[in-house]
Parts: sequence; structure tokens; C-alpha cells
Amino acid sequence: MLSVSEARAKILAAVRPMSGETVALANAAGRVLCAPISARLTQPPADVSAMDGFALRALDGHAGAKLKIIGAAPAGHPFLGKVGPGEAVRLFTGSFLPGGADTVLIQEDASVDGACLTVNEACAPAKNIRRASQDFASGDILLPAGRRLTARDIGLAAAGNHPWLSVHRRPRVAILATGDEISLPGEAIGPGGIVSSNAHALAALIVQAGGDPAILPIARDDIAAIADGADAARGADLLITTGGASVGDHDLVQAGLASRGLHLDFWKIAMRPGKPLMFGAVGGMPMLGLPGNPVSAFVCALLFLCPAIDRLLGLPGDAPMTELARIGAPMKANDQREDYVRATLTRDAEGWRATPFPVQDSGMLRTLARAGALIQRAPHAPALAEGALVQILRLDSAS
Amino acid sequence: MLSVSEARAKILAAVRPMSGETVALANAAGRVLCAPISARLTQPPADVSAMDGFALRALDGHAGAKLKIIGAAPAGHPFLGKVGPGEAVRLFTGSFLPGGADTVLIQEDASVDGACLTVNEACAPAKNIRRASQDFASGDILLPAGRRLTARDIGLAAAGNHPWLSVHRRPRVAILATGDEISLPGEAIGPGGIVSSNAHALAALIVQAGGDPAILPIARDDIAAIADGADAARGADLLITTGGASVGDHDLVQAGLASRGLHLDFWKIAMRPGKPLMFGAVGGMPMLGLPGNPVSAFVCALLFLCPAIDRLLGLPGDAPMTELARIGAPMKANDQREDYVRATLTRDAEGWRATPFPVQDSGMLRTLARAGALIQRAPHAPALAEGALVQILRLDSAS
Repeated sequence: MLSVSEARAKILAAVRPMSGETVALANAAGRVLCAPISARLTQPPADVSAMDGFALRALDGHAGAKLKIIGAAPAGHPFLGKVGPGEAVRLFTGSFLPGGADTVLIQEDASVDGACLTVNEACAPAKNIRRASQDFASGDILLPAGRRLTARDIGLAAAGNHPWLSVHRRPRVAILATGDEISLPGEAIGPGGIVSSNAHALAALIVQAGGDPAILPIARDDIAAIADGADAARGADLLITTGGASVGDHDLVQAGLASRGLHLDFWKIAMRPGKPLMFGAVGGMPMLGLPGNPVSAFVCALLFLCPAIDRLLGLPGDAPMTELARIGAPMKANDQREDYVRATLTRDAEGWRATPFPVQDSGMLRTLARAGALIQRAPHAPALAEGALVQILRLDSAS
Repeated sequence: MLSVSEARAKILAAVRPMSGETVALANAAGRVLCAPISARLTQPPADVSAMDGFALRALDGHAGAKLKIIGAAPAGHPFLGKVGPGEAVRLFTGSFLPGGADTVLIQEDASVDGACLTVNEACAPAKNIRRASQDFASGDILLPAGRRLTARDIGLAAAGNHPWLSVHRRPRVAILATGDEISLPGEAIGPGGIVSSNAHALAALIVQAGGDPAILPIARDDIAAIADGADAARGADLLITTGGASVGDHDLVQAGLASRGLHLDFWKIAMRPGKPLMFGAVGGMPMLGLPGNPVSAFVCALLFLCPAIDRLLGLPGDAPMTELARIGAPMKANDQREDYVRATLTRDAEGWRATPFPVQDSGMLRTLARAGALIQRAPHAPALAEGALVQILRLDSAS
């Protein structure tokens, strides 16, 4: 059996970053840069005031000095004259420092009577000034290629004067759910039938990961129907199947895709839940076959699909980040399979506390939805007492 | 001066949750339920097999027994007959357990020769069966009102047979950036001018928080222009202004909004960055006035705007979650203002390590974009040595 990290490495090795497209700054949050962004201007563009106050010569800035206010320089309206001896100019935060001045007296330390300014607190040279290029200089790299853009990055790209950004295209991910027993929510349910949930959960996860999902019509347990599904997926950047990945007689996904030229690796992965996984390519399109069980499908998607989407987006495709937590109940020794145990998550003074649900049956979608974390247990991990430290994978408010 | 938590409580007290709307399940991820979701069916609908194998009577399941295979029950095709003594039915994961059978022998423990099944490992009663309603029963509350829907929740709502969900409407948030000095990215920049970055960063943050932003045309530093901005915002659920919130002569936002009936609280908040904040209402529309400085505006948005959007969405509007980290450099004692210090964030065996940037000037947007966390320092917090524990607010890959 393959380990989780070996399987992920094989998937990542087979997936290439998408090419780029140009998007408006306003649509770029969450996208991944395919080229660095450099500053198109200098910020601040000149020495500017960091406070509301008065520009003056520090030589004049002794307590009790009386100066003549010769003008004002609101932000966006630089004072074009020069500040001479005994003179001051009214400034505001962001105002360009006028020529001749070398310090800013904050308004709280001044009294004004008409055009007469009285210095109430002595003012040293170079006070309350932001120097030109303190934030960045024209040509500086502001954001590197491969960066997933945060809201803050959008602000920085704006400040660097970029109305358009070059980002990796969003991968189109086709989702093919298979099975005679599944129906779409709200539609007629046959005898022995259940409602299809995997495709919908996966589509939401794919959007969150930065992909563009398409839910294909459900394929019945029939080779021709599955082959039709592969045809419907044509043009996608990644095909996901769910169901048909176990070892039963009704594993028709392989046969159906084989009729469309599937090159397949079939893996039993040393993990729980979600042992069987297919990975391969159909006509050059990478395909990942997830189990049909909803909990197994979702955990496999976190561990394998999300990193694959990351890689398509030009990101490294790292394993999901784990953090330390203390367990809220004892845990038995683990067997040879890496285990992902659904747990509630709370915080106390010592940090995170993850308490496993007593029943971990992988058919129980409700405990997955209620989980705050998955406790990650290595193969053959020893039994643990309550309070022992474990690695957890936090399930955030989106995934 | 008001504390951060006092200011947030005042804002939350003035904001009411939005009314509901019906959205398709496929569009509901990230939305907040305004009514609980209960299961419309039972899952599993009947006792089902948890494995691929054979249904039989446990009395017949002794090692070496030979049974007659009388049929098969693929998922979605229940076996309508009864399993009698000496008989077995082929099952797959999810197959309904046929009448008469009380256990499932996994296929790995069986040999098959035509219609003859040999039991290779003894099989106890009630093995490998998921009981009806193990996940949920019809009528069970699956997800409570006020839940922000994760991808997993979407799967659970699907499994509960809900094609439509009732969620709080997304609040429309109008953003009014003010200032004679600012231009849109890519447009002409006047003398003493800079590029507007706040509105774009805030819009991205608002989308991430679940709101629907509209960037209004930039308002010049002119009472009439700002009043026009208030008119343009009409119909929004929240108005955000940036700029004009300090104590300078050019604070025209108050005057401009006053001409449209502004009811205003003006607060100096004991925090850094971002001391001045306006909050009030214009014609029944709540308004939050953020500073013009990009770092101050963003930090205030995290602390006040995001909780306000949460409340509009029917969520509690909690303070941003903080976590423990060790500091990577000593820190001086804090003054009377709650401080949010930009820091890089790394992980080691002890957990998070947050290292403050040496220069914290609030004009430096680049250090905000590069920060992995804000170190939160209480008013009058004492000096700390490297390695001391602090509370941090992690800046995730979206915000």
C-alpha cells in the first residue's frame, strides 16, 4: 500500500500549472499571480507629513517661537513656494513637505491666531515625516509570482498602480458522480436509493480551493454511461469521479474510462477513511477517482484534490497544514493505516483541544459536518492518554 | 478614549441581521442559514452493507460452510426475496440488507465457485452492517440557523434532500473613498497625488466576509461631493467611508454626510494603528468611517467592519480569533493604546513564532501585505523578552 505522502507526490508530479490570463484588479482576490508585480511609482512619492500640523524649519521650532503661516498644503495640493526663516505652512497627513521645511510640528503642539503660529513644544529636525519611498520605490517587486492574492495584496497592487493583473487561469474541474442508487436533491429517489451528496460538497470545496467546478450528469452503473461522462468532461483541466473505486464487481468506472483511453494507476492507500484511490489521465486530462463514501471522498479531496488544484494554480501543493492539539479523550493504538479521526475542537488556556467522536463510521456525514478538526494519526501510532499532544488538520469555516 | 471591545459592542448593537432569501444548494456555500435544516429522509434509509460481501444468516456463517448464492443486490437494486437457511446474497457497499439475513461476510473471507459460496472465516451476527438512521433520521435537525455553510455542510444538506436553502441576504456595502489626492489605479495622477488603494482592499475583504461591495466614485474633498456620495450609497445596507476621519481642517466627511441627515458618534479609540473612527447612520443606513491611512483602514476593518458584516449575516460578530505565539524579538512596554503590530509568522516545534517588523509606520502597506499575523498588545502591556507568549491575530491567505 502507498502512503498518503507518496500518493500526493505522484499526483503533484503529474499536474502542471495553468497558463495565465489578465484579470481586473477588482476580480483578482484569491487568484494566484503568474508574474511578479513591481511598483510603477514610488510611495510616498515625496517626503510627506505623517500628521496634521505645520511644516517649518527646525531651527525655528523652539518653544514660544512665533511664526508666520504663509500657506496651506492639503493632501493633493502641494505648496509650491518655499518655507523661509520664521515661516510655516499648514499640512495634513499625506501632504507633501514644502521646500525649505525640514520638520513637522503637530497641531496639538501649536496655537494659531489668524496667520500667526505659536510653537508650544520644541520641535526637533525631521519629525513626523514619512520619507519618499518609505513604503516602496518605483521598480521594487511588491508581490512575487506564485502569490495567492489576499485583500491586503489587492491594496498593495492598487497602490503600485496596477489596474490589471496576470494570474493563473482557474482550472475547470469536472465532477462525475456514478451509481444507480443516487439521485439529485429534490428529485425522485428509486427503491434502495439515496441522495447524491458528494458532487455538491466537492464543488463547494473546489470553488474554495480556487477551481471552477462543473457537476456532470450522474452516470449510471453502466460502461457506456461512464464513457459518456468522460466525453462530457472533455475540455476540463481535471476530472474527478466519485464511486466505483472499490474492489467490487460494480467498479465500472475503470472500464468506462478505459473505453476513452484511460491511463490508470490504481492505488490502495494506507489511510482511513478512503483506502482506494484512482489516478491517471484520460486523453491527456488528469483524472482522480475518489471513493463513493461521502466521508472518504471528502477526506481524500482534502488530502489529494486540494493540493492538485493548488498545483494547477501555480502553488506548491503542500500537504494541508497541521497544528498541535491536546486530545480530549484517550485514543487506542493505530494500525498500519494513517488515520484521520473526526473530532470536535475547543480552545482553552493550553491551546486547542480535539475530542474524537466516539463512532467514526465513514458513512456518517453528520459527524464530518460537525467536526472542527481531523486528528492525524501516523501508521502504528501508540495509544495515547487524554491530554496527549497530536497533530490536527483544522477544518475551517469554509471547508 | 473608547476601548476596541467597547467600540465593537456599540457597532454590533446598532446592526441587525439581514432578511432571508432562497438560494440553490449549489450557490449556498459560505452563506449563513436563516432557518434550521432538518432531514427530509432517513440515512441510511434501511440497514445497509458497510462492505462488499455476502448477506447471510449468522447461524450459517461458520468456517467451511458452503452456501448457495441466490441473487445479488447492487446498490440501488435491493434484493426483493428473503435469505433462507444455507443461502447468501451478493452485496456491495451501500446495498440494502435483504430480509432474513442478519450479517455480512466480507468478500475477502469468502470463495466463490459459480453459485456456491464457501465461508473461509467465521462470521458473527450483525457484522459489517450500517443500521438505518445511523447518520440521521427523517426530521433530525442537521444544521442550525446561524450556521455559515461549509463544503461539508453542503454535502449534508444534499444528503438530507434539500435542493434549496434559506439564507440571510448578503449585505450590500457601499465604499466611499474620499480625498483630492487619490486616483484610481491606471488613471492620471495629479501633482501631490497617490493611487487609491483602500477601496480595493476593503472590497476584497468584504467579499471574503460574505458581503457584496460597491465601490462608489471617489469623492473630492468637498462637502457637496461627499453628500453626492451619500446619495449614491442609498439602498446599501452599510456605508463605509475612508479618509477624512482625523482631526484636521479637511475632515469634510462629517459635514458632507451631515447634509444628508447623519446621526454620528465620533470616537477616538485607544488603539494603534487607527485611532479615529466614525460610526453612525445616514437615513437609517449604518455608516462606519475608517481612517484614510491604508494600514489603519485595514486593521480597523478587521476589528470593526468584519464583525459588523458577520452581524448583518446573522452571525454573532465575535472579535477576530486570537491564538498564542512566541515572539521572535523583544518588545517594548506598550502605552495606553491597544496595539496591533505587524509580524512575520513561522512555525517551529513549539508552535507559532511571530516576529514584529522593526518599523511599524502605519504608512507602510508593504509590511501589512507581508505580515502573517498582527500581534495584539493590551494597553500598558509590559516589555517582553524574545520567546515570550503573546496573542496573535493570524492573517490568513485570504484576508
